[in-house]
Amino acid sequence: MRLPTLTTCIFVVLIATNVNAQSDPLPSWNDTSPKKAIVAFVERVTTPGSPDFVAPAERIATFDNDGTLWAEQPLYFQAIYVFDRIEQLTPEHPEWKEKEPFASVLRGDMKAALAGGEQALLEMAMATHAGMSTEEFSQMVTEWLASAKHPTTGRPYTEMVYLPMLELLTYLRANGFKTFIVSGGGIEFMRSWAERVYGIPPEQVVGSSIKTKYEVRDGRPVLMRLPELNFIDDKDGKPVGINQHIGRRPVMAFGNSDGDFQMLEWTTAGEGPRFGLLVHHTDGEREWAYDRESHIGRLDRGLDQGPSHGWTILNMADDWKEVFPSETR
Amino acid sequence: MRLPTLTTCIFVVLIATNVNAQSDPLPSWNDTSPKKAIVAFVERVTTPGSPDFVAPAERIATFDNDGTLWAEQPLYFQAIYVFDRIEQLTPEHPEWKEKEPFASVLRGDMKAALAGGEQALLEMAMATHAGMSTEEFSQMVTEWLASAKHPTTGRPYTEMVYLPMLELLTYLRANGFKTFIVSGGGIEFMRSWAERVYGIPPEQVVGSSIKTKYEVRDGRPVLMRLPELNFIDDKDGKPVGINQHIGRRPVMAFGNSDGDFQMLEWTTAGEGPRFGLLVHHTDGEREWAYDRESHIGRLDRGLDQGPSHGWTILNMADDWKEVFPSETR
Repeated sequence: MRLPTLTTCIFVVLIATNVNAQSDPLPSWNDTSPKKAIVAFVERVTTPGSPDFVAPAERIATFDNDGTLWAEQPLYFQAIYVFDRIEQLTPEHPEWKEKEPFASVLRGDMKAALAGGEQALLEMAMATHAGMSTEEFSQMVTEWLASAKHPTTGRPYTEMVYLPMLELLTYLRANGFKTFIVSGGGIEFMRSWAERVYGIPPEQVVGSSIKTKYEVRDGRPVLMRLPELNFIDDKDGKPVGINQHIGRRPVMAFGNSDGDFQMLEWTTAGEGPRFGLLVHHTDGEREWAYDRESHIGRLDRGLDQGPSHGWTILNMADDWKEVFPSETR
Repeated sequence: MRLPTLTTCIFVVLIATNVNAQSDPLPSWNDTSPKKAIVAFVERVTTPGSPDFVAPAERIATFDNDGTLWAEQPLYFQAIYVFDRIEQLTPEHPEWKEKEPFASVLRGDMKAALAGGEQALLEMAMATHAGMSTEEFSQMVTEWLASAKHPTTGRPYTEMVYLPMLELLTYLRANGFKTFIVSGGGIEFMRSWAERVYGIPPEQVVGSSIKTKYEVRDGRPVLMRLPELNFIDDKDGKPVGINQHIGRRPVMAFGNSDGDFQMLEWTTAGEGPRFGLLVHHTDGEREWAYDRESHIGRLDRGLDQGPSHGWTILNMADDWKEVFPSETR
């Protein structure tokens, strides 16, 4: 067993003093109501003896990913990865030139490619994300992220994360929360970079998935990815995914679209103190402005019913001092 | 942010000294090769600068449950729960008196009830473990465990856990490991008591499951348990379940039957230092003696092939000083 030495401890105490002197754990947030509500809630549930004290083991916070932790415009970044994979795989699939939605992707007509909605996206994801081992897939995603650039900002996708949310993740973990991603995105797609970018380990990522099969190939075991849907972690799938992976109800939940409605509903219907927040994309200058009519990240029911559920609606233009990290991470 | 004060730290250092003085973290283990192998491995992977050092985030240890953390004779304890539930529910299901395998259960003929193997058990589990909310189910299991007694020892099932394994869980966690259950048993059945009994939180329990459905009933959201199979976390399902829930390969894996073969195979095929151990039930006096021919927890292929994979085979009669905790926990 390894425990801290006295020297380490004195060092920790010195650091702690320094951190307390710096004081603001959320410097990229304006001092408006969402920040105040978050800090007040965290202090309430972490103060020993408080009637609302929540034991550390129960401190679960869940975050949607697309539009909540990183951007999702002009379309989900994983959809862009799917399109890039289709172009890459076309030599092996000459039939795609005649077959929708693949043909539209190859013509560069993304709008037509997505006309079939989630079903079309799912079909393309399964055609391009299966047939390799889990380790090969993770490697491919890592390589793509190392060179791919966002179509309008030109930045790597992993720099299109929201700085205020990175601060929030750190703040919650410093207060004993376990932070989880609960996203409609692919679980293995996100796991390839979530630990590096968000500090969220693979076992705390919940997402949509295809089935895998265990095989021993030439004496070496592999998990092969099959073109068969396993689970869609969206809308009423989110509480199901939370229960399957986490097994207890979150204390805090953060989302940005109607796909997160049930996650917030499930979270805040629990007994004792609960917190729900929806990011409202209102900042057309620094990010994007969209809500009720958007084809991506539609937020309609949440705007209407969120306040009566006690959820905080974050107004990005007013409540965030910074949106993206200014420097390459 | 709350960090340790200097006083707390001095206290921790004093405790640490005391713990070091006591020294043996595995007092219920004899000083035979399995204990030596475990301690040597843990020291190897946790010593900074060691070529085999494993970063704390990668320290994942997975444990089978039935026959590895608690006993499984004369039959899986969850099967006994299924039988108790069948008797309890019979007034609502008069047809069971004529229908196998239910009729055998009601006659008290457990052997006939289980003649249909895992399929029969699954059918009975779905008939008795579905139709209620996840919270209602958890409450029912908790109530059952509070009064049910093991048929031969008369002890509560939660006292039929292996003391050496409780020590091992604590020892690994003290060395920065995250400990997971990866069992063929029901995920929600185990979660009802795993935190209290093993110190393993719900998010670190992987098991078999039925599907659940999110519903809002009278304004209150619930997850209803459906009589529909979701996942069987056994044999080649174990690496699949590990990947789905944990998302990285364990460094250590512990099992006791051929149902754990693939979990150990997947674990120890990884690069770098890996550790696999199979509990061989050889102690007919203090526990049970069974292996190649057993209808429960059959261990045959593992005995033959385990050593060539480098797995440790634990001989319960020789390697454990104590088997069960001597006092009520």
